[in-house]
Amino acid sequence: RRSLSAVSYTDPHVSMDLLRAVLQPSFNNDIMAVFMKYQKFYEKAAENVKENVGMEVQTDHLIREAYRNALEHAKQLFPEGEVKRAGPGAAMKRPKASDEECS
Amino acid sequence: RRSLSAVSYTDPHVSMDLLRAVLQPSFNNDIMAVFMKYQKFYEKAAENVKENVGMEVQTDHLIREAYRNALEHAKQLFPEGEVKRAGPGAAMKRPKASDEECS
Repeated sequence: RRSLSAVSYTDPHVSMDLLRAVLQPSFNNDIMAVFMKYQKFYEKAAENVKENVGMEVQTDHLIREAYRNALEHAKQLFPEGEVKRAGPGAAMKRPKASDEECS
Repeated sequence: RRSLSAVSYTDPHVSMDLLRAVLQPSFNNDIMAVFMKYQKFYEKAAENVKENVGMEVQTDHLIREAYRNALEHAKQLFPEGEVKRAGPGAAMKRPKASDEECS
């Protein structure tokens, strides 16, 4: 929503996003490594879904969607509002299932 | 956008999201560990921004925003559309800076 060429480099959000963009490739590699840990679970689940639903389920689509959802939900570790801090303890926070998809 | 109690458990997306929700706390811990690697860079950048801009910059807000943006951009590893596959090679893909905030 922000074009880097159109805004001031003294904008704090732009400065931070420049760093973010620089680190993103390395961060992406780390993220992929994390997802590799869970891949077998998602693959198994997607295969089960395909078996049970018995229709044209594209397992790789389902898995990618689940991964995107996991990243979306991980944002809750770093909330926008006024909070004490998003330290390691925040990782223990487990939102109620009913709230999960409401954001 | 989907309430778990209101939809069928045979919905493939719901089934996958149940697994996602189960794995989310563990995934969040892994994500926090990844961000710890980069924290010093973001903290330094936020301090510089605060110094340079010389106004009421809340460094922790800036850092959390950058983290959320990093998670948002990591979704590009797992695109919605028709692609070959979101394997480890995809992590090497580096979008042009000008495209970064357009999605």
